[in-house]
Amino acid sequence: MVYFDNAATTFPKPEIVYETIMTAMKEYGANPGRSGHKMALKASRGIYETRELLGKLFNFNHPMNTILTFNATEGLNIGIKGTLKAGDHVITTSMEHNSVLRPITYLEKFGVENTIVYGDEKGRIKARDIEKAIKKNTKLIVTTHVSNLTGTIMPIEEIGKIAHANNILYMVDASQSAGVYNIDMDKMNIDLMAFPGHKGLLGPQGTGALIIREGLSPCEIFQGGTGSDSQSLIQPDILPDKYESGTENAPGLIGLGAGIKYILQRGMDNIRGHEEDLTKHFIEEALKIEGIKLYGPLNPKDQAAVVALNIKDADSSEVSYILDQEYDIAVRPGLHCAPLAHKTIGTLEQGAVRFSFGLFNTHEEIEFALKALREIAKEL
Amino acid sequence: MVYFDNAATTFPKPEIVYETIMTAMKEYGANPGRSGHKMALKASRGIYETRELLGKLFNFNHPMNTILTFNATEGLNIGIKGTLKAGDHVITTSMEHNSVLRPITYLEKFGVENTIVYGDEKGRIKARDIEKAIKKNTKLIVTTHVSNLTGTIMPIEEIGKIAHANNILYMVDASQSAGVYNIDMDKMNIDLMAFPGHKGLLGPQGTGALIIREGLSPCEIFQGGTGSDSQSLIQPDILPDKYESGTENAPGLIGLGAGIKYILQRGMDNIRGHEEDLTKHFIEEALKIEGIKLYGPLNPKDQAAVVALNIKDADSSEVSYILDQEYDIAVRPGLHCAPLAHKTIGTLEQGAVRFSFGLFNTHEEIEFALKALREIAKEL
Repeated sequence: MVYFDNAATTFPKPEIVYETIMTAMKEYGANPGRSGHKMALKASRGIYETRELLGKLFNFNHPMNTILTFNATEGLNIGIKGTLKAGDHVITTSMEHNSVLRPITYLEKFGVENTIVYGDEKGRIKARDIEKAIKKNTKLIVTTHVSNLTGTIMPIEEIGKIAHANNILYMVDASQSAGVYNIDMDKMNIDLMAFPGHKGLLGPQGTGALIIREGLSPCEIFQGGTGSDSQSLIQPDILPDKYESGTENAPGLIGLGAGIKYILQRGMDNIRGHEEDLTKHFIEEALKIEGIKLYGPLNPKDQAAVVALNIKDADSSEVSYILDQEYDIAVRPGLHCAPLAHKTIGTLEQGAVRFSFGLFNTHEEIEFALKALREIAKEL
Repeated sequence: MVYFDNAATTFPKPEIVYETIMTAMKEYGANPGRSGHKMALKASRGIYETRELLGKLFNFNHPMNTILTFNATEGLNIGIKGTLKAGDHVITTSMEHNSVLRPITYLEKFGVENTIVYGDEKGRIKARDIEKAIKKNTKLIVTTHVSNLTGTIMPIEEIGKIAHANNILYMVDASQSAGVYNIDMDKMNIDLMAFPGHKGLLGPQGTGALIIREGLSPCEIFQGGTGSDSQSLIQPDILPDKYESGTENAPGLIGLGAGIKYILQRGMDNIRGHEEDLTKHFIEEALKIEGIKLYGPLNPKDQAAVVALNIKDADSSEVSYILDQEYDIAVRPGLHCAPLAHKTIGTLEQGAVRFSFGLFNTHEEIEFALKALREIAKEL
């Protein structure tokens, strides 16, 4: 099987990630932060190390402000809904995932206004357009770093500057970039950043994080047991406890730490370089196939390892089905939970076949996919 | 190491659980419900099977109403906050975990009234007291099935009858009972039930569920990508998608399925029988040790495999520390995130040393712990 669905979840994970999870489960599978015995403490320390590793990756030296979540959606919901209240205005973009668009739309009924800035036909957002959308009551700007449909890399540093200059909070959805692209919380003026652990960070599913700039304290969404200030019926205000109620996915989070260590050892630049090579190769050759339409910037410096395409007028599900059934190539068709991004690039009806490459993909696999596409394009 | 902290998380898990998780990660570690390729479908089917297995366990034949969560806290928050609105009244008990008490307290500022029914000195709640607390605007009753402090088994069937007769919703926190005690959603008139996957159900951390009676539809808490109705910016109203935004913990949930299958094969009655034997043995012998005070009903028919105790006036943390350091016995001291339960039994200052037994504990381990307690009681 050739796995080109890395934007949904990376597969496989480095062997050390599997091993670390298994060791955490079998050798110290206690509940971290709940008891004081050796095994519980070892689990707690493992989780704390993951906070530190995330800090290393994003130049963020406040491990207690690195909130560990179960996926990116949780972090996005806390960041968005915990920050905005009636009368506020939020700016976002058409290139967002439903994990951003749906919470923002939900807030409309609670009196939170929004402006959705549209990208161009390649899914590019201009920082200037975001600046123009700022109103007196703009409290928050939320943008993705990399589109999960077109792979378009957004000008987050520029947007961060604009947000900072206007005293507006900036939240980045790093779901498609964390672990592959350099992100500097400080330098880029990012106030809140959410991402999953199971994509570029090479951890398991059931993990994610929300990084909160020091001094910020969005409202929490869940209340529950935190193992701290337990005599109080009020959720504690200290971080990370405020946002981490109930038992965490300890083995998963410890496994995520192993994924990050793997990235740091191998070098994020090397990983990104490999993914860029694959993407470049794929785009260059796919562009030559008659009947194939490619979306996005089509330039690996502006586009992550995500390439959306269609073959003639064929439904994206049909093409993906053929790739799966006849070639054993795993891609993702349809809308990718990003309806306005499809509207932006004009594929709301047809959907798109999304190829997303990862660290463990090879040029041979790219060649094989190109061969498949050539054959399918001829037949359809 | 002797592990007596099973009320925090069961340890170890059956070998098949570890194996199943590893296979799910290594052989079909795709994102379920997001793509249509073989590996993603296999993950989806694995998760669906877990819904069915949970239905089997709780006599609940609506797998789409079995919402898979990341822990019990998430399910409790959805059930409580998704059901109650300004002007409503909710009844709960002093024996609840903070995962129930804190969401209910949080709702006070949004105009939701509450009544907390207190247990007696053994942590027993009388159904009659709950009935007496019913008011015209009572919308919901929330009780635990088993106290995580005293192990007291609550009369949930009786409470369910009262709720049903008064047209009030009944939510059960089955965190300490799911997988060990018989629970019949229908017969017991349970409308909502939340529990973790990593305790009695023998699954991994990062899993849980919320079962919602057919026809009920509490408000969701998170909005995000569901892989369904993706063109809409409004969270879909269909179950389970409404409550399952973002990537799930697929390998964990598939591992949870393996835990449930293990329970069904071994027989829940056998598992419970073993835990009752251990508890009986421990209580009988511990009662003979001078200087030890035991809490709870102290009768295995009214008390699950959770036994709280103190030695003279010693701080519970000190006793637990000695057990851990000198005997390698893992227990949990302190407040166990259940402050009002401690108030109920009079241990808010001292805390309590909680022994919680599991399927894999042995009578030899109980003997060893008793020996340790005898020695510590003599020394302190």
